[in-house]
Amino acid sequence: MTFDVSARTVMERCDILGSYSEEPDRLTRPFASQAMRQVNEAVASWMHAAGMTVQQDKVGNLIGRYEASQAGAKTLLLGSHLDTVRDAGKYDGPLGVMIAIACVERLYAQRERLPFAIEALGFADEEGLRYHSAYIGSRAVAGTFDPEALHLTDSDGITMAEAIHTFGGDPDPRALQTARWHRDELLAYCEVHIEQGPVLEASNLPVAVVSAIAGQNRITIRFRGEAGHAGTVPMSLRHDALCAGAEFVLAVETGARGFPGLVATVGQVSVQPGASNVIPGQVTLSLDVRHQDDTVREQANRQLEERAREIGAARHVSADWQMLQGHCAVPCAPHLAELLSQAIEEIGYPTLSLSSGAGHDAATMSELTDIAMLFVRCRGGISHNPAESVTVEDVEVAIQVLERFLLLLSKE
Amino acid sequence: MTFDVSARTVMERCDILGSYSEEPDRLTRPFASQAMRQVNEAVASWMHAAGMTVQQDKVGNLIGRYEASQAGAKTLLLGSHLDTVRDAGKYDGPLGVMIAIACVERLYAQRERLPFAIEALGFADEEGLRYHSAYIGSRAVAGTFDPEALHLTDSDGITMAEAIHTFGGDPDPRALQTARWHRDELLAYCEVHIEQGPVLEASNLPVAVVSAIAGQNRITIRFRGEAGHAGTVPMSLRHDALCAGAEFVLAVETGARGFPGLVATVGQVSVQPGASNVIPGQVTLSLDVRHQDDTVREQANRQLEERAREIGAARHVSADWQMLQGHCAVPCAPHLAELLSQAIEEIGYPTLSLSSGAGHDAATMSELTDIAMLFVRCRGGISHNPAESVTVEDVEVAIQVLERFLLLLSKE
Repeated sequence: MTFDVSARTVMERCDILGSYSEEPDRLTRPFASQAMRQVNEAVASWMHAAGMTVQQDKVGNLIGRYEASQAGAKTLLLGSHLDTVRDAGKYDGPLGVMIAIACVERLYAQRERLPFAIEALGFADEEGLRYHSAYIGSRAVAGTFDPEALHLTDSDGITMAEAIHTFGGDPDPRALQTARWHRDELLAYCEVHIEQGPVLEASNLPVAVVSAIAGQNRITIRFRGEAGHAGTVPMSLRHDALCAGAEFVLAVETGARGFPGLVATVGQVSVQPGASNVIPGQVTLSLDVRHQDDTVREQANRQLEERAREIGAARHVSADWQMLQGHCAVPCAPHLAELLSQAIEEIGYPTLSLSSGAGHDAATMSELTDIAMLFVRCRGGISHNPAESVTVEDVEVAIQVLERFLLLLSKE
Repeated sequence: MTFDVSARTVMERCDILGSYSEEPDRLTRPFASQAMRQVNEAVASWMHAAGMTVQQDKVGNLIGRYEASQAGAKTLLLGSHLDTVRDAGKYDGPLGVMIAIACVERLYAQRERLPFAIEALGFADEEGLRYHSAYIGSRAVAGTFDPEALHLTDSDGITMAEAIHTFGGDPDPRALQTARWHRDELLAYCEVHIEQGPVLEASNLPVAVVSAIAGQNRITIRFRGEAGHAGTVPMSLRHDALCAGAEFVLAVETGARGFPGLVATVGQVSVQPGASNVIPGQVTLSLDVRHQDDTVREQANRQLEERAREIGAARHVSADWQMLQGHCAVPCAPHLAELLSQAIEEIGYPTLSLSSGAGHDAATMSELTDIAMLFVRCRGGISHNPAESVTVEDVEVAIQVLERFLLLLSKE
């Protein structure tokens, strides 16, 4: 495969951005940090080179604008986030911004204007590392920013308001609660992002169209049995809370497999009293359930709750089911997904449609406009890890798909 | 049921001993503490009242001697421990010493001497609360004391040697390694102890004869799978270490039920990374396996290790089996168990024979002489807990059984 210089440029730029970190030996780039300042400067220079006018908004998002062929045209938003988790990889977020800029750069190199303006957005915070409040950047754009968050403090006691001010923004609650655009000024928001999962690799494909961002529940299940001496209570007289918990863990696995596309995970286990010579009296499990169809997710929840009660009842162990949080699925706009699929097919790949189990800025942006997402294969499905890796070949495919998508959108 | 005043006395004495604690609101009586000094003083006074000569040995054990009817007779040892765990109950340990004294007191009241001397031992440490080294008292008596332990420090930095010295003992390593008696000077060691389990209660019986103190293994099992994003890795592509661990927990339960008398317990679970939105990559479990027959225990271990490997292999999750420690079962002397059974039947109860899943001073004393143990029912099988409870009726049965046992032994 031969490819334009831009894919290599995108890879190099991701390398450069990966060098801006708040920690010496690993990539950690929180909201409104010195490393984010360096990143915004670098990205601004690349936006300028791609023929865009650049500004940083009140919350610290970087926005590059490439005008339309005619005045009064709508705007297409492209973008992703520029912050990272702790000990991050280089591509989660920045890759989407770099591919957006690369596409504009190719248009600019050919002195081409489209019937809509393009804005490339580099969001100031998606991961929520510094304030444990995710999507600060896209919420400020979509007008869904919660001004209460301005009082949150980081580990050094600095409030979000102070951090925004120091970063050169303006922590004005009214401004941060106001959407940057009216819905009818916008065409759509389209985000390119690494898959952060193994499906593309397993399917041997470079890219996929995202059908929806999955809805999610976080649940706590507590089994209460009877603690006892590991040496003196016969097996037949036990009410071991961990055995109930173990049955439930396997019921979650089996249950999830019964709903195509559902993922359900027990990620945390706490055993009380937690001594090697004491029968567990209480076990607390976390449960994370996700699906792109809210009715399927709710049905799975009901079934798993019922299983927890059955398992407990059979063992004379109480089962307590506590729903901590939930949010609905966010569908991608079908006509945009269709255009992305068409773009993928036109450059010679089969279309794979995937739901996103992870949250993305696109979910927030769906409050403002139609959304579309393109996933790029990442090695081993690994993300939030320095081993995060994409190939220059796949990046080239993603650029070509996004280019073709812009073209198809222009023809509508 | 009517009964001698002694059972009430035993209950009252357990209450009194339960008031001597190093902590104001709960019973915590570590080795060589001020509370142990008070306990030894109180118990010494009761030993004196029962016609015994009393001494405290080099490690702090309290020893009361009731002479035989003739000179040169052997000695029968009775006893248990006087220390406690943290936040303890009143009966684990002291009950056995109080019942021994009560039996001697009844002999003394009738001016009766037996053809053997009786020594009632109140061991200075069985629980190992202060130095995390259990059986200090009985080891010093049996001559199996490890002099290295003298250098252990408590949470205040006080060495065991200093503690013994302050308590009025003599931390002389040679003396502590020398058995107090020659084997041929002794008849046996017999210990009365609460069951610390629910079998007597479930069987509706006051006492049981102990057949053996179970052998035990402590094992660590580690399953290593693949961590991943809880939202992006489909169920079919997961290698969830916790699912493997859960299968194993249930395999332990099922496996243990396949070996009558075996108890096997997973009491600790550690999940890595342990976040609600991350598929567990590694799970570490503790496993405690006990049985009175070493060959059964070893067979169970082999079977469970095999199951761990099978479970791991089926999931492409590695299984690491690490044997941390093990000790063999200690059988009670059959002829003594037979005498105890006969005593129980003669006072009108059916005999129940139980193995002890918990360790006891008797196991240490088996290095020195034949051992026998009598279990007393405790409410709900609860021990190591302030809710530990026995009835005065059951205590009276235990005193009568021990009295009858002394009588039967006298006739041999």
